[in-house]
Amino acid sequence: MVRKHNHRSVCWVNPMDTHALVRELFVKNDSKIVMLVADGLGGLPMQAGETTELETAKTPNLDALAAKGVQGASIPVAPGISPGSGPGHLSLFGYDPIQYLIGRGALEATGIGFELQPGDVAIRCNFCTLDADGNISDRRAGRIPTEESAPLAIKLCDVSIPGVEIFVEPVKEHRFVVVLRGEALGGDVDDTDPQATGVPPLEPVARNEASQKTAEVAKQFLAQARDILKNEPKANFHTMRGFAGKPDLPSYEEVYGLKAAAIAVYPMYKGLARLVGMDIIGAAQTLDEQMDVLKDAWNDYDFFFIHFKYTDSTGEDGDFDGKVKRTEEFDAIIPRVQELRPTVTIVTGDHSTPSFLASHSWHPVPTLLASACCRPDGLDAFNENTCIRGGLGQFEAKYLMTLALANAGRLGKYGA
Amino acid sequence: MVRKHNHRSVCWVNPMDTHALVRELFVKNDSKIVMLVADGLGGLPMQAGETTELETAKTPNLDALAAKGVQGASIPVAPGISPGSGPGHLSLFGYDPIQYLIGRGALEATGIGFELQPGDVAIRCNFCTLDADGNISDRRAGRIPTEESAPLAIKLCDVSIPGVEIFVEPVKEHRFVVVLRGEALGGDVDDTDPQATGVPPLEPVARNEASQKTAEVAKQFLAQARDILKNEPKANFHTMRGFAGKPDLPSYEEVYGLKAAAIAVYPMYKGLARLVGMDIIGAAQTLDEQMDVLKDAWNDYDFFFIHFKYTDSTGEDGDFDGKVKRTEEFDAIIPRVQELRPTVTIVTGDHSTPSFLASHSWHPVPTLLASACCRPDGLDAFNENTCIRGGLGQFEAKYLMTLALANAGRLGKYGA
Repeated sequence: MVRKHNHRSVCWVNPMDTHALVRELFVKNDSKIVMLVADGLGGLPMQAGETTELETAKTPNLDALAAKGVQGASIPVAPGISPGSGPGHLSLFGYDPIQYLIGRGALEATGIGFELQPGDVAIRCNFCTLDADGNISDRRAGRIPTEESAPLAIKLCDVSIPGVEIFVEPVKEHRFVVVLRGEALGGDVDDTDPQATGVPPLEPVARNEASQKTAEVAKQFLAQARDILKNEPKANFHTMRGFAGKPDLPSYEEVYGLKAAAIAVYPMYKGLARLVGMDIIGAAQTLDEQMDVLKDAWNDYDFFFIHFKYTDSTGEDGDFDGKVKRTEEFDAIIPRVQELRPTVTIVTGDHSTPSFLASHSWHPVPTLLASACCRPDGLDAFNENTCIRGGLGQFEAKYLMTLALANAGRLGKYGA
Repeated sequence: MVRKHNHRSVCWVNPMDTHALVRELFVKNDSKIVMLVADGLGGLPMQAGETTELETAKTPNLDALAAKGVQGASIPVAPGISPGSGPGHLSLFGYDPIQYLIGRGALEATGIGFELQPGDVAIRCNFCTLDADGNISDRRAGRIPTEESAPLAIKLCDVSIPGVEIFVEPVKEHRFVVVLRGEALGGDVDDTDPQATGVPPLEPVARNEASQKTAEVAKQFLAQARDILKNEPKANFHTMRGFAGKPDLPSYEEVYGLKAAAIAVYPMYKGLARLVGMDIIGAAQTLDEQMDVLKDAWNDYDFFFIHFKYTDSTGEDGDFDGKVKRTEEFDAIIPRVQELRPTVTIVTGDHSTPSFLASHSWHPVPTLLASACCRPDGLDAFNENTCIRGGLGQFEAKYLMTLALANAGRLGKYGA
């Protein structure tokens, strides 16, 4: 599997195409796999000699699961690489995060719950401020608040271009998304944000023949937007960035033979799950409601992805105590999963979010797998310190699904 | 390094071609490397809280070697992948098990000790039963016993096709092997087994131009076989599967500069060793006899592969106590190896075969390396629980040979 990235002449090579192997080897049975993702699970001590959030939290249920299971430290992309939510989750889902890159426009659209269709082109847009000479004076329109920017995004729905269906969706502050739907729209168009002030925005330029029409449509959009916004005090124009088509990801059914469901609260994670062909089930707003949905759908699916956001958001806020509390809240629902008797239970995160850094980080993620045929590693706690001594060792997150399938009895033998 | 596999249009890519590196770096000296392979070495507890076969066995000699050596957990192919004997051994021999796939026909021929030559095409055949309409009523001819099927395979030696030399070899029960030898015989022909009953067998169809002649020869073989077998009550026909040429593997001499010998009891392992250019020496039937052969040949080779089957076969039988006993038997011969003072001693398995699963598995394999210049890791026992804490960490089995060469002083520096 070789693919070329748009930016520069880098040819990324996927060393071993695990998917090609797994497609040949998977078998179906009645097993159930549950993957619990505590977003940003791994952390750091706030000071030397102290404990991490997970080490500080009281997690009797995770510790009991650790005693029955096998743990390890998963590396989302590569050592030292801090992933965003896209690559972090694709890895957990078993998709090589280097091979399968979700374009920024597509990720932004996915994040607000917009269902991209094949052939769509999604564009991240920033409101900006132009001075009297038409040069950019503020690339983010003074970080205009959402309550002011959202109505402007709605106004841009008036843009009309023959032969192209246009969606404009507010996101947050200066950000909004444009999705173009129509025939023959390639996704390879350069950003119009010059990444500088005192200069005019760039024209959208196609990087290949197939994207000429997209660039032309973008130009028309910008011309109409300039007119619509011209009297706005702050946001009198916008830039376009991260043009991207819907990523072409094979589905869980194709690759693993799994009927999969996602039980998530936030649109971004529903969107990521949808991209790999999971059904989005329920309308849960809390972990307890997510457990209700899990129980109700137990007989309808082979695989359940359950997403818990708040271990990440507290970490992003640098709120150590908050993350400890959210971790304990997460621990508390483990018994509700276990009473359903899944064949394989996985607990992990899509990356670390140490409160100390108040951001996503590259640190390996504590990961736990329990099944009747895992090889226990003699550890009876689950945290950053135990996981590096675990039986799964340090491993690339993209292998987690292969391990899940093996432990569920869903993988045949490779070679005779 | 890019190569295409025969089956499907998958393009496998080899990330780092270790062989290309090693070919440039190896040096020769008088060191001796012994690789002891206890087939299916790794295991599992039968119940939570209990010990594995290797942990249960009394292994004073392996434990003493562990105190001097360094251990780790080797991953035969990739996390979660359970290998067959072919990929399992190729990995141990340092051949990327994804890049070098041995076709099923070639492996079956190898397994019965048939020496394939370049250009040969080997085919796994199954006797089957056809009903009066020519449809398959039993794909395995009622699992006809070997004493009935072997004479039928011998009868098929009467098949004669001009310009092609034909070998028919009984295997076991309904299985036998056909090898075609001649000019311009490609190996890419589809199976004739429809994988169903109530339908006729398929015709052999070439997947490319170079295999047209092979398909034609197979058709003629089947026509003559149909006539020869027509009055048999059970096995009145046969199918053909897994057409495969001799795999093209560089030899130990070419890649490592090693003169290598294999001391094995079973034909499969002799065959696998032969494919990488090892000499098959002795006619030992027991471990003790294998040690006699080792001692006698000590001055004639640089590298010795010693294969012990019974840790796998007891595991496959689900016979935990038997595997414990066989492990102890294996442990007992370690002193006989050590008294020859090998420069490097390696103890490993080609995969795990837990009695709990009664099959090959994906679990990492306890692996031990002892030399005067290994870096000891302070462990004085050798099992599934210690190996994950060892100095070799978790590593892909295909790197074991590079480690062996390095510890034998047989690898020069890479770069200045």
